[in-house]
Order: sequence, then C-alpha cells, then structure tokens
Amino acid sequence: MHLFYSNNIIDKLATLDDDECKHALQVLRMRIGDTAQVFDGMGNLYDAVFIKNQDKQLIAQVTFKYQLQPLPYNLHIAIAPTKQTDRFEWFVEKAIEMGVHEITPVICHDSVRLNYKTERIHKIKLAACKQAFQLYLPVINEPVHFVDFIKKHQAGFIAHCKPENKNSLANLINRQSRVIMLIGPEGDFTSHEVELALQHNYKPVSLGNNRLRTETAGIYISAYMRSLI
Amino acid sequence: MHLFYSNNIIDKLATLDDDECKHALQVLRMRIGDTAQVFDGMGNLYDAVFIKNQDKQLIAQVTFKYQLQPLPYNLHIAIAPTKQTDRFEWFVEKAIEMGVHEITPVICHDSVRLNYKTERIHKIKLAACKQAFQLYLPVINEPVHFVDFIKKHQAGFIAHCKPENKNSLANLINRQSRVIMLIGPEGDFTSHEVELALQHNYKPVSLGNNRLRTETAGIYISAYMRSLI
Repeated sequence: MHLFYSNNIIDKLATLDDDECKHALQVLRMRIGDTAQVFDGMGNLYDAVFIKNQDKQLIAQVTFKYQLQPLPYNLHIAIAPTKQTDRFEWFVEKAIEMGVHEITPVICHDSVRLNYKTERIHKIKLAACKQAFQLYLPVINEPVHFVDFIKKHQAGFIAHCKPENKNSLANLINRQSRVIMLIGPEGDFTSHEVELALQHNYKPVSLGNNRLRTETAGIYISAYMRSLI
Repeated sequence: MHLFYSNNIIDKLATLDDDECKHALQVLRMRIGDTAQVFDGMGNLYDAVFIKNQDKQLIAQVTFKYQLQPLPYNLHIAIAPTKQTDRFEWFVEKAIEMGVHEITPVICHDSVRLNYKTERIHKIKLAACKQAFQLYLPVINEPVHFVDFIKKHQAGFIAHCKPENKNSLANLINRQSRVIMLIGPEGDFTSHEVELALQHNYKPVSLGNNRLRTETAGIYISAYMRSLI
C-alpha cells in the first residue's frame, strides 16, 4: 500500500501537503475512495482512505492507528559536507534508510564545501524514510561551524584519521547508546580541531583500519548502530 | 605517498599498465626519481622509486616489501544489478571500501537490468581499493543467471523480503565466516527463486526490520562483516 507523510493529522483527518498531494494525484494516480497509509514522522502510522480533494490539498480519513517502537539507540552524525554534492546526498539517503536520528553538516577548517541543497536534501530524507519504512522522521540541521557544534554538544565521539590511540566502536558503544559522531572533511580534521574536541569531552574512536571516505564513514556508523539492535 | 596498482612485479621491478601510467604521469605529474607505493592486489605492498618511462610504461624499482594480513572473513555478495546504474556503482564502491571479496551480479526473474558497465566498474574497483587501502583486489564476476549461480555455489544466505521466519545475521555469521549473500532485485526474489535457494542449502537471513533497497542491503552486509573484526 502507498505510504504518505503528513504533519497535519487532526481528529482522524490527515491532510497531505502540496508535494505529497502532487505525488499522490499525478504520479500514483490516487483517487477519492483509494486506501493508503499515512505516517506523521513521530512513529505513528495510519491506515486511511482519501475522502476529499480541494484547494490542492488531499484529505484522508484515518481508519486505524499503529504506533511503532523507536530504535533503542540515538545516533546524531555531525559530518562535513563532501566536496561532491552527490556523495553527501548519498550519505543522507543511506544513513536514513539504516536509521540515523539527526544529521548536522559541520563546517571544518579544511572543508571545501560549506553548504548543501536544502530542498533537495529534504526530498531525499522523505523518500528514504518511506522506502525504508523509517517512521520517525530524522532531523537535518542547517550547517554550523565546528567550534559552535562542539560547544553546543559537549561529549561525543570523533572519528579522526590521525595515528593516535583510539578505542574501537565495540568498546565505547552499545545498543542503547546516545551517540554523537563527528566525521571530518576529505582532508580530515586539523590537529587543533581534534584537540578542541577532546577538551569538550569527545572521545577518539576508530572506524577500522581502512581509510574510509567521509560519506562512507557516515554510512558505516549508521550500519554499525543498526547491527546492534 | 601515492599508491599505484601493478599486476606485473618481477625481480623487484614493478611495471604500471597504461591507465595507471597515465594517472601517474598526467594527473599526478610523477617523474623519474619520485617515490610511490605499489600494490599487487594480493596483499603485498611495495615502497618503490620510478626509474624508467618508456613505451607508455612506467617502471618502478622496489625498495621495500610489506605483506598485509587478509581479513578474517570472506564475503561474496551475489546481487541483482539495480535499475539505476549509479546505485549499483555506489554499492560496488562502498562494499569494496568496507572490504568485500567477491561480487557477482545475478540476473533474477524480476531483474530489470541485466548488465553493467564493465570497464567503469573496474575503474571504480581500483579507485575504491586505493582510497580505502584495501590491498586485496576483490573479484567482480560477469553477470550470471540466478539458477546457474546457486547451482555453482551451493550453501549460503538469501536476504529475501518475504514475511517468513528468518534468522538474524548475529545468529548465523561470525568474524571468521565464509559468507555468500544473495540479494535480490527491486521487486525481490520470486517465491520460486527463494524455494530453489533453500533447496540448494541457502538459509534465509534477516537484515533488520526495514525495507532496504538492493544496494543498501549490499552495503549493509559489507558494513556488518567489517564490524565483526
């Protein structure tokens, strides 16, 4: 059954926004009387039937409600946007399919790219949630500078590539962990950034012996957390 | 230091092929007397210095040899090529960065795409190995039909999406496992294909509660095996 997102579900009536509406009517050719599922991005899933189509809004009557359990862990990935936009978009899609909760693009000293295409990323987010039936909508924040991020979020993990002693994920993280993972740009964090992170209670962590690309590191930590469930 | 691949290392002389040679000379501007590292795709890594450039071949003198340990597991992913070429290419890149040993594109009953761009995939393979310092070159086979594959490789795992009892990865696989993992096309395996696989000693395995795309499932199993090291 087709799945739609709505942030407007009141009194058993779910209203789809413009984009979802267009997708339902023009791509999927849904009509009044058709059944579908609607999710609110907070773990609630509804069986519903379309009853009204007016003013570019499609309204569905809820017939049944399910509540889905959240994941046992919480994963927030703070990651430098990659030089190539598609690598960052790819990371976002895969991390969401695997179950990330929050993504913050962080601007580091050696970052080449300082932004991302907001609207496109939000489309990818919704599509990935629907595809993977991830019914808790993850948060994707606006880009922030590295220093501002670690000041706001004190304590977490930093996956830098410098040859220093680092703990393995298995020694630091379990299935109920709240994880903030810092992943650097193509040129890695600077020594100064690593030092600053340590001062703000970030622990250095190893993602294995191989040099993972920025987006691969982000996908890997998402897969790792998922594997603990 | 720059890393090059050579399948021609004899008597401490490493000869780079056309592509590697072009990359060294035209992109990286390497010159006679420059040092580099060369790997043979079988776990051997060499420090070397370029000594000769003739007939479009660049020859390096080996000065030191290292031998890298292979991964404790062996992972062979047999996967239906995705409808969109770039999704298959992303899978190949990420699976190799994370440490896959062998990839076989399998043509299933509901496969939409029956092939892939061989030359492009092999370029991606080499680039991913260099990027991630994966010094054992994985094997990427020519596409084969599902039935031929399971007849040739009897016993493995099948990650189908049908609502049947499946074991979790953790119950079936450990860090020293030899894993053959079958991953189906966008429309999943047919019931007949699943039945055939079971008859050929394939065990159904669950990759979690979410609907993973074909390429995401392939990346996930690669990350899972890597997480066991």
